[in-house]
Amino acid sequence: MDNRPVGVFDSGLGGLTAVRQLMEVLPNEDIIYLGDTGRVPYGGRSKDTIVKYAKQDMAFLTSFDIKAIVVACGTVSTVAFGEIEGKYGVPIIGVVAPAVKKAVEATKNRKIGLIGTVASINSKAYEKLILESMPEAEIYSTACPLLVPLVENGRINRGDIMIETAVREYLEPIKAMGVDTLILGCTHYPLLNDVIGHYMGDGVSLVSPGAETAYYVKRLLEERDISAERGHNAKYRYYVTDSVDGFSGAASMFLSKDVSGEVRKVDLSVYED
Amino acid sequence: MDNRPVGVFDSGLGGLTAVRQLMEVLPNEDIIYLGDTGRVPYGGRSKDTIVKYAKQDMAFLTSFDIKAIVVACGTVSTVAFGEIEGKYGVPIIGVVAPAVKKAVEATKNRKIGLIGTVASINSKAYEKLILESMPEAEIYSTACPLLVPLVENGRINRGDIMIETAVREYLEPIKAMGVDTLILGCTHYPLLNDVIGHYMGDGVSLVSPGAETAYYVKRLLEERDISAERGHNAKYRYYVTDSVDGFSGAASMFLSKDVSGEVRKVDLSVYED
Repeated sequence: MDNRPVGVFDSGLGGLTAVRQLMEVLPNEDIIYLGDTGRVPYGGRSKDTIVKYAKQDMAFLTSFDIKAIVVACGTVSTVAFGEIEGKYGVPIIGVVAPAVKKAVEATKNRKIGLIGTVASINSKAYEKLILESMPEAEIYSTACPLLVPLVENGRINRGDIMIETAVREYLEPIKAMGVDTLILGCTHYPLLNDVIGHYMGDGVSLVSPGAETAYYVKRLLEERDISAERGHNAKYRYYVTDSVDGFSGAASMFLSKDVSGEVRKVDLSVYED
Repeated sequence: MDNRPVGVFDSGLGGLTAVRQLMEVLPNEDIIYLGDTGRVPYGGRSKDTIVKYAKQDMAFLTSFDIKAIVVACGTVSTVAFGEIEGKYGVPIIGVVAPAVKKAVEATKNRKIGLIGTVASINSKAYEKLILESMPEAEIYSTACPLLVPLVENGRINRGDIMIETAVREYLEPIKAMGVDTLILGCTHYPLLNDVIGHYMGDGVSLVSPGAETAYYVKRLLEERDISAERGHNAKYRYYVTDSVDGFSGAASMFLSKDVSGEVRKVDLSVYED
């Protein structure tokens, strides 16, 4: 038993979709969330910059007494995971391995689609891991740079011409290849489940890395016997790098419930990168 | 005569639309450009964060021996200008005053439209200055948070359903009020001159703050007798906070010509905010 909190970070608020799953799957775990809202988005930046920001995010979270860290950011998980893994004395869980496990289980025709940020797609991280466990898989990927700003502006509903157009343009070539599984490789994208699911059709399984990661974390905590006590009253703390004002409103869209917990502002530039 | 460079900064690359005008209007002036590409965009962030970043931008540029600074960022010019003006020992020119002067000259029916980032529109900076010189003006403004990402993804052409939809949604209420002048209050927007001009119609004058600012700078340098010598062979230096790779490609879209000059990466977190 270990009631210390789990740390979770993302470039901004998208990682809260993973937090939501963690809260459901692990209702007794304390969570410390860091959203780098003063520098969001990461997905169009260079590897050097993403690595630098990820190290500052890690340095901040490991300044607390925590038992594990979840990288709830598709961009950091794909671009910078190798630069942070094993270097902070705590287990670090990214979203790639859990999503790949699920996608490989789900696909029947071994044609897997993948969407993500420019940096994530360029990294080829998903391709490498999929091919390790399923060498005959065919992977069709495309970067979708407009989906994050569209989601952040609330353009998430069917019938909205802008999101429908963007989804169709990005996914048309992937759909044409006949994939039966699609990895939503950015933690903003689960908010587009409805639009993307409708466009791709019933025969295509959508894999949300954040959701799969929550089960991965549960297993890891159990294996190491560091789960929180049953009945432990979970506490949530949120840290952001831009103003705390307005956090609750945006956060409730990603969490699909009211944020309860403390929200504070932090300056990451004083943390080592 | 003063051959020292003029400093120009923006949150990212949008300010290069103003640099292009400066190069045309002041072909003998050396320019040092700073684009905070590692933290772009500023327009959705809080005032505190925008002021902090603007002060670091200023501290960096004033570490050179320069004779004036142009704030080629609509968000900083509207949100943080009062916090930096008069505090660095060099003249600082924002885009608001030049744009307001032009808009007030251009309007005949005294109905002026204004578009910009969320932070710019919330600041009411344009409204205040317009009403000082034209108290009977009617100003209709709206924040357009999706225009920057759309421009940055090259969605700038007529016939593109996404940019046409966004422009129509944002501008419909302003057009309905019968404005005869529209201020494009963000340095990304001049790339949308064609789409916006077509939607608003021939009777509406579009005011590009970056273009007006170049004339303002010319007058200021002449009045203070600090223009560069005629025949001085202007040199251009560019600094960015993300990788220099890919700068040239994106920059050429904003400058409408090849970037010639030196591009370097800088870390602004070491500069005082």
